[in-house]
Amino acid sequence: MKKVNVAIVGATGAVGTKILEKLLEREFPVESIKLLASKRSAGTEITADGQTYIVEETVPESFEGVDIAFFSAGGSISEKFAHEAVKRGATVIDNTSAFRMQENIPLVVPEVNASALSGHTGIIANPNCSTIQMVAALQPIREKYGLERIIVSTYQAVSGAGAEAIDELEGQSQQFENRAETEASILPSAAAKKHYPIAFNAIPQIDAFDASGYTLEELKMINETKKIFGDPQLAVAATCVRLPVVTGHSESVYIELGEEGVTVEALHALLEKAPGVVVQDDPSTQTYPMPLFAEGKDEVFVGRIRKDPNHSAGYHLWIVSDNLLKGAALNSVQIAENLIQ
Amino acid sequence: MKKVNVAIVGATGAVGTKILEKLLEREFPVESIKLLASKRSAGTEITADGQTYIVEETVPESFEGVDIAFFSAGGSISEKFAHEAVKRGATVIDNTSAFRMQENIPLVVPEVNASALSGHTGIIANPNCSTIQMVAALQPIREKYGLERIIVSTYQAVSGAGAEAIDELEGQSQQFENRAETEASILPSAAAKKHYPIAFNAIPQIDAFDASGYTLEELKMINETKKIFGDPQLAVAATCVRLPVVTGHSESVYIELGEEGVTVEALHALLEKAPGVVVQDDPSTQTYPMPLFAEGKDEVFVGRIRKDPNHSAGYHLWIVSDNLLKGAALNSVQIAENLIQ
Repeated sequence: MKKVNVAIVGATGAVGTKILEKLLEREFPVESIKLLASKRSAGTEITADGQTYIVEETVPESFEGVDIAFFSAGGSISEKFAHEAVKRGATVIDNTSAFRMQENIPLVVPEVNASALSGHTGIIANPNCSTIQMVAALQPIREKYGLERIIVSTYQAVSGAGAEAIDELEGQSQQFENRAETEASILPSAAAKKHYPIAFNAIPQIDAFDASGYTLEELKMINETKKIFGDPQLAVAATCVRLPVVTGHSESVYIELGEEGVTVEALHALLEKAPGVVVQDDPSTQTYPMPLFAEGKDEVFVGRIRKDPNHSAGYHLWIVSDNLLKGAALNSVQIAENLIQ
Repeated sequence: MKKVNVAIVGATGAVGTKILEKLLEREFPVESIKLLASKRSAGTEITADGQTYIVEETVPESFEGVDIAFFSAGGSISEKFAHEAVKRGATVIDNTSAFRMQENIPLVVPEVNASALSGHTGIIANPNCSTIQMVAALQPIREKYGLERIIVSTYQAVSGAGAEAIDELEGQSQQFENRAETEASILPSAAAKKHYPIAFNAIPQIDAFDASGYTLEELKMINETKKIFGDPQLAVAATCVRLPVVTGHSESVYIELGEEGVTVEALHALLEKAPGVVVQDDPSTQTYPMPLFAEGKDEVFVGRIRKDPNHSAGYHLWIVSDNLLKGAALNSVQIAENLIQ
């Protein structure tokens, strides 16, 4: 197999560091790795697997000789440099929302739609974290029984808002007695006008609002799910909520299948064979997924699978995964693995 | 107005102390207040509004001369003493799940079904905390447009599991760096075989599981909602999750109305006039309910009201309230106020 020259843009961030880890851990056939970031971070040393890398400033020329460039430094950086990278012959795997909904850009979760990669024109988009874990778990169900409808409420971790949000949660968590007066400067998002404490709270806002009253995070879940499944008619409804959890997004997912009377046992059996999915579902032993125990793991965990007694095709699932791994870095590396096959 | 002799069973608990507070704060016309608890707590002094009360052990004779007895000491205590109280002429307002689903026992949220009180035969049940806030917010919508379906995912606070669960969350919150190894002995419920840390986690189990794979908390929301609304055909689906929040339950509620094309503005206008409900819903100023700011408040807060673009009668609401107040103590005192009117 030909060895690959790789670049990681946003190498010092929460996701960028995980991309480097996953490339090394999965023995991706790298010829060279170039770590890129902002001018401010240039010169930073990052050590992984016994080797030290020096971070360089991202400039258009950084991408000369690069085969695959991972981008995870925010939408504006992707908009500025992704086409520069493509122009120089690199294939871009972009972890931001910059290109996800563009018609000619594949939006890929390998377990679901790896075939979409074949049409790419230089940029491949990695979906939003909360979308990835949901579609990965629902794909085998959709394939076998059809899927008419999804109604999802999320329970999202602060690491999705970056390393500063983790620091904020840690600081606030020490101040139990004064929780309502705790200072906040990052969440719900650094760019927002108002900030609210996240410790001992639940914030029903992730990303900004659009004119419809939905948040961009909710619209990402709705629109990306339809695109990845290639089903614009699929009904998707979403409410996204940030919690005082460090890493690991959870989702309460209600689905209506295209078929009636499917048993819970049949869904179990199907999910147990699904790639990248682990079923944790045994009420008799209190076995169900929880974010605290999903942190650091590659898989998507599914439990609390139940039939709705009031709807003949309705089912509940509780889906949990590490938002920095399958939700971001791991999925990006899996896309790269598919590309070089 | 005739003055009333009151007893509070479970007076030292999280809800019992709030019942005493609310009786005094709302100037309920008390002739006398008797605080009752277990033998272990007998002799405890409780001071409220400048007056000191001495807690007595609950025995059948405690209810001699009592007009209204509030029970909030667990289902087994209610089963043991509620009929003893009724036999002695008291009306019981029971905050446990012991009698809620019995056919001849009214299950009451005064804003929704105060009329059910007229048929009572000595015992009136106070619904589950997560049910109360949901039906209080949905009642005006149901009354005007009809309600076909509810799909709810909850975000519940630890104080619903008692004062010990609050202590557990506080202790675990100090141990940020060792979060996965944190010790747990209370949640998901003291009676459960396994316990999991709640700090920095989300536990999709509240109360025990039944054979169907649902938790009792989920079944309470489903069955109590149908009973309070007097609509056994109403489709209700629920997933209940415990969070690292001290007080204040939040709910992501999806509803389908009996009518199509209702505007979000019409729902706003309706809820703004609803008794006990406060609309906090302005995305342009990041205004929405959050549990941290609902703690200590009497009202049910509603926000994030949105139309489902894929379903002509589908809407989202985010409903938050203090689970110890409207979810328990306040609703019980409001039932008593209705009784003496």
